[in-house]
Amino acid sequence: MTILTKNIPTADIIVEAHERIKPFVHQTPVMTSQSINAISGARLYFKCENFQKVGAFKFRGATNAVFSLNEDERQKGVATHSSGNHGQGLALAAKMQKIPAYIVMPENAPRVKRLAVEGSGAEVIPCKNTLASREETLQKVVEQTGAITIHPFDDYRIIAGQATAAKELIEEQGQFDVIMTPVGGGGLLSGTALTCHYWSPLTKVIAGEPSGADDAIRSMKAGTIIPCPQPSTIADGLLTTICERTFGIIKDHVSDIISVTDDEIVAAMRLIWERMKIIVEPSAAVPVAALLKNKEEFKGKKIGIILTGGNVDLDKLPFR
Amino acid sequence: MTILTKNIPTADIIVEAHERIKPFVHQTPVMTSQSINAISGARLYFKCENFQKVGAFKFRGATNAVFSLNEDERQKGVATHSSGNHGQGLALAAKMQKIPAYIVMPENAPRVKRLAVEGSGAEVIPCKNTLASREETLQKVVEQTGAITIHPFDDYRIIAGQATAAKELIEEQGQFDVIMTPVGGGGLLSGTALTCHYWSPLTKVIAGEPSGADDAIRSMKAGTIIPCPQPSTIADGLLTTICERTFGIIKDHVSDIISVTDDEIVAAMRLIWERMKIIVEPSAAVPVAALLKNKEEFKGKKIGIILTGGNVDLDKLPFR
Repeated sequence: MTILTKNIPTADIIVEAHERIKPFVHQTPVMTSQSINAISGARLYFKCENFQKVGAFKFRGATNAVFSLNEDERQKGVATHSSGNHGQGLALAAKMQKIPAYIVMPENAPRVKRLAVEGSGAEVIPCKNTLASREETLQKVVEQTGAITIHPFDDYRIIAGQATAAKELIEEQGQFDVIMTPVGGGGLLSGTALTCHYWSPLTKVIAGEPSGADDAIRSMKAGTIIPCPQPSTIADGLLTTICERTFGIIKDHVSDIISVTDDEIVAAMRLIWERMKIIVEPSAAVPVAALLKNKEEFKGKKIGIILTGGNVDLDKLPFR
Repeated sequence: MTILTKNIPTADIIVEAHERIKPFVHQTPVMTSQSINAISGARLYFKCENFQKVGAFKFRGATNAVFSLNEDERQKGVATHSSGNHGQGLALAAKMQKIPAYIVMPENAPRVKRLAVEGSGAEVIPCKNTLASREETLQKVVEQTGAITIHPFDDYRIIAGQATAAKELIEEQGQFDVIMTPVGGGGLLSGTALTCHYWSPLTKVIAGEPSGADDAIRSMKAGTIIPCPQPSTIADGLLTTICERTFGIIKDHVSDIISVTDDEIVAAMRLIWERMKIIVEPSAAVPVAALLKNKEEFKGKKIGIILTGGNVDLDKLPFR
């Protein structure tokens, strides 16, 4: 373990993370939409991480983690369990550093996702589709290979990497009244909150969260982490539960978390597809759904929204 | 009629058109995709007219035509028959100039399209879904209102407007080995061919055309316009037949037209959606399908592709 995993990232640590990953990640474009501005009554700036490598912001954190390893750790490689964007991000970051990567994936994961991870040269280790099986299998892989486990969000190197999306947004577009993200495990939200705390302290950080996976809202109310008993939402990137590291930052630096239903998420996703002509995944539409649900609160404000990713299965779209 | 409609646009006329429309159209971004480069073996630069106002390049030509009217013509307004992008483009351009617009549309046109046109303040006049009814109805509208008919492509003002997409592409990204567009009525293709002829004479202009609406290929072979008897293709923007004005330019300045099937179009469209995370309509995927069908011909070359539009009905997507 390096020092980076022990403390909440400072401004210097986030600057370092940004310098470290800058040559390897896309500085994604910021888009605006006159028609969604008109519909919402706010001035919106969309940071398009759906255009990031592997199609999601997760590549930022994964790259920062992998590129932070020392020589000894590099030899052993990295491992995680993921059927989603973190697995793909970690696999590609490991490929760029020419180190081994082991990705534990449920055997029922979509073939296209497995192929994408394998395409980056990572080894895919199948497991049963339960959290217990995922964790056990990962444990075995780590014992056998000595690989370093890179958690998708419970890791300050990951949080510092995700913080760079909002940092780029502010550097390019100046100060915002509000910056919005979705919240799943809280890596992006906590990183965004740190960035605003350090470089734009008057900016409110507000998250959207699916009502079917509302552990962050429950936890904010209770002041302690309360998992959602049976999380279920179309926003498949947000099924995870926040952890001590992310919640510690979120409770101090996030102004509000707004709950949205799956119908509201799909409607927001459709609006983005139709008006902006870009593909975002359901999770990415969550803050837009939160904004449209609370128009009065955001009226006339300058709002940054991080569009987190664009990985959808075109064979299973929620439009009818 | 102004002088602009009487002669093939000169370089000066296209420069004038560009200056005229520049403050009102988006200078659309140029995107690249490492993965589609790897798949194709070529270096591709995508001019994203799917991000243009009304979601298609058609707004360029419509704006040039509307903004070229003299005071007397402005008073009378403009008219066309269109269920697609030209109708929307003309309606918005007319709105910007605060002049009346009359758009004849088949009564079975999608509600969302009718609403979009009406949303720009244009008057929608319903007709039966036949070319005869469209033309008759338009004729009546013109007789009643004195409005100036703006044809979607058989008009040198339109051609000069469409020529500005390739002009921007070359100005931003330098010379190309090849620039590709689809061909329907030929407005974009002939405009692109003129731009290359004037400012990048070593660039080959190559089009893709749906095999189910292959009037341009038939006409190139025959040396005279041969309509396709019963045009049918998923690329609904390309059902139209080239005309004397566009064919006159195409036969002199276009190197090749490549035929592609609907399956090839859908596969190319899917590739763009999945790899680039942007929404393009079937017509826009046609040149990409043509490129992928002839990889050897394009290998290692620097290729500009005009992605013509992004207006799809999300309820009727061709993916399974």
